Amino acid sequence: MSAPTERVTIKDVAAAAGVSKGAVSLAFNHKPGVSEATRERIFAVARELGWAPNSSARSLSRQSVDAIGLAICRPARLLGLEPFYMEFVSGIESVLAERSCSLLLRLVGSLEEEIHLQQRWWRERQVGGSVLVDFHRDDPRLGPLGGIGLPAVAVGHPSLTGGLPSVWTDDATAVAEAVRYLVALGHRRIARVGGPAGLGHSAIRAAAFQRTMADLGLDGGLHLATGFSGEEGARATRTLLLARERPTAIVYDNDIMAVAGLGVAAEMGVAVPDELSLLAWDDSQLCRLTHPTLSAMSHDVHGFGAQVARTLFDVIAGQDVPSRPVATPSLVPRASTAPPPPAG
Amino acid sequence: MSAPTERVTIKDVAAAAGVSKGAVSLAFNHKPGVSEATRERIFAVARELGWAPNSSARSLSRQSVDAIGLAICRPARLLGLEPFYMEFVSGIESVLAERSCSLLLRLVGSLEEEIHLQQRWWRERQVGGSVLVDFHRDDPRLGPLGGIGLPAVAVGHPSLTGGLPSVWTDDATAVAEAVRYLVALGHRRIARVGGPAGLGHSAIRAAAFQRTMADLGLDGGLHLATGFSGEEGARATRTLLLARERPTAIVYDNDIMAVAGLGVAAEMGVAVPDELSLLAWDDSQLCRLTHPTLSAMSHDVHGFGAQVARTLFDVIAGQDVPSRPVATPSLVPRASTAPPPPAG
Repeated sequence: MSAPTERVTIKDVAAAAGVSKGAVSLAFNHKPGVSEATRERIFAVARELGWAPNSSARSLSRQSVDAIGLAICRPARLLGLEPFYMEFVSGIESVLAERSCSLLLRLVGSLEEEIHLQQRWWRERQVGGSVLVDFHRDDPRLGPLGGIGLPAVAVGHPSLTGGLPSVWTDDATAVAEAVRYLVALGHRRIARVGGPAGLGHSAIRAAAFQRTMADLGLDGGLHLATGFSGEEGARATRTLLLARERPTAIVYDNDIMAVAGLGVAAEMGVAVPDELSLLAWDDSQLCRLTHPTLSAMSHDVHGFGAQVARTLFDVIAGQDVPSRPVATPSLVPRASTAPPPPAG
Repeated sequence: MSAPTERVTIKDVAAAAGVSKGAVSLAFNHKPGVSEATRERIFAVARELGWAPNSSARSLSRQSVDAIGLAICRPARLLGLEPFYMEFVSGIESVLAERSCSLLLRLVGSLEEEIHLQQRWWRERQVGGSVLVDFHRDDPRLGPLGGIGLPAVAVGHPSLTGGLPSVWTDDATAVAEAVRYLVALGHRRIARVGGPAGLGHSAIRAAAFQRTMADLGLDGGLHLATGFSGEEGARATRTLLLARERPTAIVYDNDIMAVAGLGVAAEMGVAVPDELSLLAWDDSQLCRLTHPTLSAMSHDVHGFGAQVARTLFDVIAGQDVPSRPVATPSLVPRASTAPPPPAG
């Protein structure tokens, strides 16, 4: 009767939590009638026993999801200037629209603020679940948000996102592909203009860049961290082009910085791609609108956002969702990359 | 006692609606305890008598505004590609963040869908108020949303937004400035690549373009309507440059289309600005990152969004808010505009 393989039922959870089966059902269906303390005890017991409501029961509750939450911890101005976030949000919205669900969007000043916000959103049932983004190493959100029953999907590599179901991009493989392509063209001095060092995915890309360069016997030290804005991309490009030994190729961490780099090269009379190759990241339509068009590590960011939203609905429906990568960004060579000049 | 100038009080509203003063207060403070039918009767009576709760009373309720609503009726993909909307949203978010308020964002497929959505948001108190955008002539939202008590701010010219308090941009004056600048440089054949004809602000700009050209004795007929995407901007530019008598200057309705136009000119070997002048609109950072940099009608879109959010909070607080324009877009000449070639 109590063999280790015995399936845990709602009855076991109710008994262990000292409540009725109805109360467990109310708690998991986000219905009123159970106190906050009781709900948390029920969630804790269910986690301990490894029990989750089955998906057919939960799919009923899914119909009541009016909104999902997304908090972004970046300056408001940057949100408007970074094509990545706009496309990501539009991908999320494309799935929400099918389900008559809205996105509750909030800019926060710190991860601590996000923790309190997500706790409140969930406690007050303002959201049926949340998307968590921009993971740091030892991210402070994992502990406090892991234990409250909030259905959540993490956007980030599983090494950063604790036990949360995550949807992620294999940045390390993509960086290696970018570097190997430039080296195959003949480049030796390759620079990288990256994102903030504190962000987990920036750190993963920076490490992959250095590792790949080292594997190829090259110096991976030409690396500048920025805050992702076009202005910072322009400044970093100027710094690199004014150096005594300037790089013959630059890899950027987004596309707005690559567009800025193209402008700086033109302003300084450095011919792209004859004297300098530029490789963008994310590949929004910007890369196809410039002249020369920008080679890029292309990435379906809209589809990424859509996949994240679909995964969150699976989690909300009580499914056991594995962490899964989306398609790895792949190289789209255009007119901004070519072999280096003979002197390079 | 009942002179016409007598001030209407909450007591009058309660008496006319056949409820207690407490019920009126509950209704206007979005508190439970009043049925939906009663609430609507109270709002109807208050409107009829011209009564609104005073701002000090409403400012208490303002603390309970957890979210404001924004529905956008454009394809999801376009939202991610159009710098205007994300800068506008980031401006709204900058004000919401100060007040610990979130944005409930939804993409809708039609204005009818938006009407039902806004009614539900308000009925279920998911929002404390809403921002309404992209007005059409005889906009179908005005009737249904005007009568439910939803605090709302319209983004659009007062000629389009009925009696709603609106925040707007004086597009007609800005278009006239753009045209007069190009004519002062010596241009005579000036084309315009605009937005969809059905949108109110596109129609206002198109009319202003034709009127200004006519006033100056020039042909204002060189005008192409697009859906605002870079691809459509590129196609329109190719069409114009392939025409037998091609224009010497093009005015675009946003900046992504102007960037695309710059790429097309380079691809076709048409020198900017020596053979062709390009003038962008909205002036996100893109215009400063291209080479040549783009002259633009500059517009603080982030500040526009912030102003809209502040105005909505005033409306929610029960203040009598007049429609007001934000600063008119002003010309920022950069490297993409110059006198036309001698033959032009």
